[in-house]
Amino acid sequence: MRKLTDFRLLSLGITAIYLSVTATGGVTDSVSPIYGVGLPGEYRAWQMITVAHEAGKNNDIRAILGNDVAVKAFRERTRPFPDGSVIARLAYVYQSSAENDTLFPAPQSFVAGNPTNVQISVKDSKKYAHSGGWGYGQFENGIANQSQPLLNSCFACHKKLDSSKDFVFSHYSP
Amino acid sequence: MRKLTDFRLLSLGITAIYLSVTATGGVTDSVSPIYGVGLPGEYRAWQMITVAHEAGKNNDIRAILGNDVAVKAFRERTRPFPDGSVIARLAYVYQSSAENDTLFPAPQSFVAGNPTNVQISVKDSKKYAHSGGWGYGQFENGIANQSQPLLNSCFACHKKLDSSKDFVFSHYSP
Repeated sequence: MRKLTDFRLLSLGITAIYLSVTATGGVTDSVSPIYGVGLPGEYRAWQMITVAHEAGKNNDIRAILGNDVAVKAFRERTRPFPDGSVIARLAYVYQSSAENDTLFPAPQSFVAGNPTNVQISVKDSKKYAHSGGWGYGQFENGIANQSQPLLNSCFACHKKLDSSKDFVFSHYSP
Repeated sequence: MRKLTDFRLLSLGITAIYLSVTATGGVTDSVSPIYGVGLPGEYRAWQMITVAHEAGKNNDIRAILGNDVAVKAFRERTRPFPDGSVIARLAYVYQSSAENDTLFPAPQSFVAGNPTNVQISVKDSKKYAHSGGWGYGQFENGIANQSQPLLNSCFACHKKLDSSKDFVFSHYSP
């Protein structure tokens, strides 16, 4: 119910921070700290921009999806991204598939396990002028992570990219 | 122009095999041998089902997309898939990203390089009754691969799955 309510409010364009109560009784916000970014209701139906595997500490396999504004900009190589662009990075546990490998000539199949988190990047050049025009949020099970150091690390990393990329790592895969 | 023409014909539902001439003067079909499966015009805009990395000989990173019928069946765990389900497997060269790794704490970023091929699976329980209800096609640069041994290898592998999976490897990633 909580998530449905979030989505309904988001779909009405309400972006103000409000509190909701989880099933365990804890109090969490539905939007990220610093940026106030929420989880768009329809992000899972967005078009695919590209895919990647992040080894190391994260060790995930990921899909990068985008709303229509973002996908159009990726396809047309428009930089900077226009306001209204939203990019969703969906990460899953990177796991060897024993199920597939029993049927393949050698162990070679790596698939998406349980979801780890979803990161949302929202382009609003005025609202987020101090972070290259991008606002960030990270969500676990639909709940906005409230760690300020985590959220500060988003732009701290993305700003290492040169401005011709408009602070976005992903390239569009045709 | 050739691909545009293919897409236009496909969008009209014309599935008959017809010949077209490539830029190099070679003659190719627009649909797969054995099954007569074409490349759906809008597959790149379909929703994402899951992602995977295939090591070994293919060494690709891949996204699995589906049309609305297939995605609904995946989400609702409907097996067998209803007729009209179409699954697209988009594969890209699996490559280490030197660009990203210069910014990360360690070499850890693997991304999608150039596309290798697109495989299309079409569910039609009557038309493809002899291959578990599935017809297959593989496309490089939008051109249907005409290798009959390649196409025969599709169901030869998929049929190793038990029938509860309806001969489909992928699981839906939420």
